[in-house]
Amino acid sequence: MDEARDLQGRLTKPPGSLGVLEEVSVRLAGLAGQCPPPLPEPAAVAVFAADHGVHAQGVTPWPQEVTAQMVANFVAGGAVVNAFAKQVGARVTVVDIGVAAPLEPAPGLLSRKIAPGTADMTAGPAMTADEARRAVATGIEVARELAGQGARCLITGDMGIANTTASAALIAAFTGLPPERVTGRGTGIDDATHARKVEVVRTALVRHGLSEGAGTRDPLDVLAAVGGFEHAGIAGFVLGAAALRVPVVLDGVIAGSAALAAAALSPDALAGCVAGHRSAEPGHSAAVDHLGLRPLVDLELRLGEGTGALLALPLVQGSVRVLHEVATFDSAGVTEKSAGATEKEAAPRNDMISE
Amino acid sequence: MDEARDLQGRLTKPPGSLGVLEEVSVRLAGLAGQCPPPLPEPAAVAVFAADHGVHAQGVTPWPQEVTAQMVANFVAGGAVVNAFAKQVGARVTVVDIGVAAPLEPAPGLLSRKIAPGTADMTAGPAMTADEARRAVATGIEVARELAGQGARCLITGDMGIANTTASAALIAAFTGLPPERVTGRGTGIDDATHARKVEVVRTALVRHGLSEGAGTRDPLDVLAAVGGFEHAGIAGFVLGAAALRVPVVLDGVIAGSAALAAAALSPDALAGCVAGHRSAEPGHSAAVDHLGLRPLVDLELRLGEGTGALLALPLVQGSVRVLHEVATFDSAGVTEKSAGATEKEAAPRNDMISE
Repeated sequence: MDEARDLQGRLTKPPGSLGVLEEVSVRLAGLAGQCPPPLPEPAAVAVFAADHGVHAQGVTPWPQEVTAQMVANFVAGGAVVNAFAKQVGARVTVVDIGVAAPLEPAPGLLSRKIAPGTADMTAGPAMTADEARRAVATGIEVARELAGQGARCLITGDMGIANTTASAALIAAFTGLPPERVTGRGTGIDDATHARKVEVVRTALVRHGLSEGAGTRDPLDVLAAVGGFEHAGIAGFVLGAAALRVPVVLDGVIAGSAALAAAALSPDALAGCVAGHRSAEPGHSAAVDHLGLRPLVDLELRLGEGTGALLALPLVQGSVRVLHEVATFDSAGVTEKSAGATEKEAAPRNDMISE
Repeated sequence: MDEARDLQGRLTKPPGSLGVLEEVSVRLAGLAGQCPPPLPEPAAVAVFAADHGVHAQGVTPWPQEVTAQMVANFVAGGAVVNAFAKQVGARVTVVDIGVAAPLEPAPGLLSRKIAPGTADMTAGPAMTADEARRAVATGIEVARELAGQGARCLITGDMGIANTTASAALIAAFTGLPPERVTGRGTGIDDATHARKVEVVRTALVRHGLSEGAGTRDPLDVLAAVGGFEHAGIAGFVLGAAALRVPVVLDGVIAGSAALAAAALSPDALAGCVAGHRSAEPGHSAAVDHLGLRPLVDLELRLGEGTGALLALPLVQGSVRVLHEVATFDSAGVTEKSAGATEKEAAPRNDMISE
């Protein structure tokens, strides 16, 4: 990281002029343990898809079957994640980690179903301890598979009707913030539904002894209580990528809540995480603040699927490419600025430059 | 534009979930007069390079010869603009529109020198009226050349030691804001140099009768008084692109000040302008606010060259690609959300979902 900081200062540009991107390049050098770090190319996005028992509580106007329908749309290449992935040269893999409906095998779809949707977190744990552990292990394995296929940058994606409710519960638990601060409107819900959603999150937190935050609770236990299969899968994906020293670009609120779980399991998991964008969901800002991450793109997106992270990918890649390709002042024969002084020996007095 | 708005509402995503990017796609549909508008690919960046007589006033610690040295760096492919252009698949063309030093011909360098640098704006007009007109015409011509070579998206770039001083003067003139509000630290200057720079801008504005703003003054006259050749060139580039209905992604404070001039010459010039990023320069925010543009990337960049706009390019391209490639609810067989209601007929009462 020191080498990368030093190199950033010698490249043919004013020191610090790449702003936030200089620190991104420094962090990725630290992750790789070399400077410059490998270019994070090619990239692969894993869209973890699952359903949620809490859907029964009326937290969203979208019917549950939309999860499976959107998986079909991803596999057919018709969703926004596909368009953005094509734009930035990333590959899309969909992981059925817990969709309620049975899904036909298809190219680009990994069948890793833990169960057909979680249980209703307001009535009991969303997952059993074993299911949560297997979902995390699945995410680790998917990271390993994609890296094994050559991916040098991993991107989190998600699909799951009602999954912003589980995200809000996880964020409340891991940050200790109250439900009304971290529960948003997801895909766009009316005031009555939003009020109900806040109460559903509160109820679940109370039921699982999490209303004062997760404290020293086993993060796997928290995931099992109020998480979704895609949250556990993404937490594992982040852990697996960190173990491989492959950077991860996090998408929005679902990824942010999963990253909280991953960081609770192992703080080192964050070393390779870049927050791709800031979601319109209030819980997402709470999550990235808690994680100390600064999102790169901030355009009021609230789609999920990995779309916000994909938009940030060229920024991450560009930050590293600079370390590989930009000439230094020495090598390019460009004069550095004079230290602390301006060109003129003495500053002109105002009366010299005024009429 | 109405067609694009309607289509955005029928695509397989929650309505409005692409945030700011939906409006970008709508504006580009309006520019093209068709929906979907053409994909803004391939893209070409024109780096307008020039020197500034005001450099003699000690507004920057960088020697003037750095302008020519950086042009050599661009042509050799060693600058950040080259790395970012490679990352996003754009072509770089450097336009010598007024570099002080004579430059050898080179591939990728257009020799369009109006004069070897402007005159010192604190002592008289930076350019003659004829020079300003020719610089604008050069920018129009460069837009036409790049579009003629196949570019479907144009990106503004700039190089010119001391050009943030000229930008601040232009922004003060066109927005009516005082120099201390719009004059920044450019490449990074100390307090004393910054204070001097503010006074230099103030002196120039007073000298040219612009201290209360440009009012109804001929925008070409304002450009001639306090602008740079690259500012006039970029203003023409924006006008030329608009006439061709090709979108322009604006870089930072130099482009923002040039776009103010272009908009003053013809408000229609803005129809195809996207603000690529928000520069760390305070004058840039003043400029984009005045123009009613919302920058897409906000990462404290202050490098110029076109770098911030290049980072925004995939976002602009992605916004249009969505209109081309994403399936509609109808075509993909995805169920739309129930109107104004949630899945459940009645909301569960709290006592039903609490323990």
